Amino acid sequence: MKEFELIKKYFTEQAVNRKDVVLGIGDDCALLTPAERQNIAVTTDTLVAGVHFPHETEPRAIGHKAIAVNLSDLAAMGAEPSWISVAITLPEIDETWVGEFCAGVFELCEYYNVQLVGGDTTQGPLSITVTAQGLIPFDKHISRSGAKAGDWLYVTGEIGDAALAIKHYYGKIELSKETLTATYQRLNYPKPRVLAGQALREYASAAIDLSDGVLSDLEHIRKASNVGVNIVLEDLPLSNELIDTLGHEAAIELALQGGDDYELLFTVSADNKVGMETALANVGVKVTCIGQLNATSKVTTTLNSEVTQINAIGFEHFSAKDNSHER
Amino acid sequence: MKEFELIKKYFTEQAVNRKDVVLGIGDDCALLTPAERQNIAVTTDTLVAGVHFPHETEPRAIGHKAIAVNLSDLAAMGAEPSWISVAITLPEIDETWVGEFCAGVFELCEYYNVQLVGGDTTQGPLSITVTAQGLIPFDKHISRSGAKAGDWLYVTGEIGDAALAIKHYYGKIELSKETLTATYQRLNYPKPRVLAGQALREYASAAIDLSDGVLSDLEHIRKASNVGVNIVLEDLPLSNELIDTLGHEAAIELALQGGDDYELLFTVSADNKVGMETALANVGVKVTCIGQLNATSKVTTTLNSEVTQINAIGFEHFSAKDNSHER
Repeated sequence: MKEFELIKKYFTEQAVNRKDVVLGIGDDCALLTPAERQNIAVTTDTLVAGVHFPHETEPRAIGHKAIAVNLSDLAAMGAEPSWISVAITLPEIDETWVGEFCAGVFELCEYYNVQLVGGDTTQGPLSITVTAQGLIPFDKHISRSGAKAGDWLYVTGEIGDAALAIKHYYGKIELSKETLTATYQRLNYPKPRVLAGQALREYASAAIDLSDGVLSDLEHIRKASNVGVNIVLEDLPLSNELIDTLGHEAAIELALQGGDDYELLFTVSADNKVGMETALANVGVKVTCIGQLNATSKVTTTLNSEVTQINAIGFEHFSAKDNSHER
Repeated sequence: MKEFELIKKYFTEQAVNRKDVVLGIGDDCALLTPAERQNIAVTTDTLVAGVHFPHETEPRAIGHKAIAVNLSDLAAMGAEPSWISVAITLPEIDETWVGEFCAGVFELCEYYNVQLVGGDTTQGPLSITVTAQGLIPFDKHISRSGAKAGDWLYVTGEIGDAALAIKHYYGKIELSKETLTATYQRLNYPKPRVLAGQALREYASAAIDLSDGVLSDLEHIRKASNVGVNIVLEDLPLSNELIDTLGHEAAIELALQGGDDYELLFTVSADNKVGMETALANVGVKVTCIGQLNATSKVTTTLNSEVTQINAIGFEHFSAKDNSHER
């Protein structure tokens, strides 16, 4: 009992105190007052030890990532994150572990003014389920289904680095110390594109966050919007570490198929291109145009204007098995 | 991939289609439109196999209970349930199991017009985390902190039967077939007191749902409201099965300390007693007055007007260990 009371103590010691939280942690439910003329976006993601992250991952990274992957889903809709619930199942209580985990959770919460409003702590194999909620003014959300032929395909940041770190964890490659440090950050401390997502409300025709890999996630936009797409492979934003380690061709392949980027993949009409690029520059987020939608129902790729074959459709989390599928 | 697509299929085949759900399952987030002048109650509960239920529990019961325990928390606040997210971690996909689990989930959802709006399916040791949300008109919620000295203490339904079934599972007692059938229902198919909770909005000064046992859960009301309480043991509502199996005294002890009842424990001022009893009779829920609050900070018990000692403070889920503590 006392040990679980300890966790309660950690979880009630947060700095965020939102005005729209009538009752926070400590009653049967939390009680929230949504803003007028705003919809609520809600998303849930589970991370399981040994599946979504190696058992030995540092607890601060686990806490960070459990929140980040959910905020990333909110970002892809254009929502402003507001409230989270954290359900954590732990084999045993280790105070240091819990303190570090909470530090990872609260660092992101404080940065984005997100309040922890509830959750559950249970004993069992390590896993974390977070439900995150955010606010979006009526009719301003970005769905997966609004892309049109002719729209341009964009991605934020750089892609493929997290997948490079996963290859290292599998023992498939041996990274230099510098590259490992950089890609480890990308894998374990992804930065959800919250401000970019909100800036895109006015400009994007469709958006998704990259959790399973560009090719795999792009399929969701393509099918929901009933469009085709050509990806210009030489335009993919790749880090120097990725290119130096794998060479350009293998780097492209990994960037297309690897997961865990948590960048935003989105589409913009020709009319909105300039406005969007200015808006994203204002929030300090790099964006790169990587292709264009068309009226076919196919995905094609070109490299230096020549049509290229991409074989596989990407999916690789930490575990080699197909182990997670968000609904 | 295909197997997890199968689960997706099951989860998108629900009958409930609420008008306040702008986007349901299938995008990065669900999108909800809260009603005007209503707060949102949100609660999260995790059930872990081998901790909260035996591994061999029938999947329909697991689905039912995962939803019921969350609706029970909403009921204790007086909320009208509206939306749920279900995160399920499964060791492997068994189509029959998933179908039965979903039947248990959707049966309750359809009855209470609750829409599944999202979740996550991952591979790993069996556990289910549900986040449930409900609506309450501004200033109408029931908290744990409103009880006053002089208020009467009530409980819905009958208590102790689920704990009797747990004793049977542990091999501590051997129940007759009829008693096992009845108490098995109470343990595995608890009925959340949703309508009673909404009826209590106008009358109760405080409420909580009974998950950990009367003595344990009463402590939350007592501490939050800063009151004392006397429980009149001969007034506890016990089933004939419970009394016949254990005798009256041991039945009282189990009813006080056993968990998993999912009845509502609540307090009512003298002025509201008659109104509350009429309102609860109108929704067809039995209520029993089991004591009164006072200005001490103690819990006392009387049996036929004599002061009685109760030793332990209750907590027993399926596992003997202290393994769960809701925040």
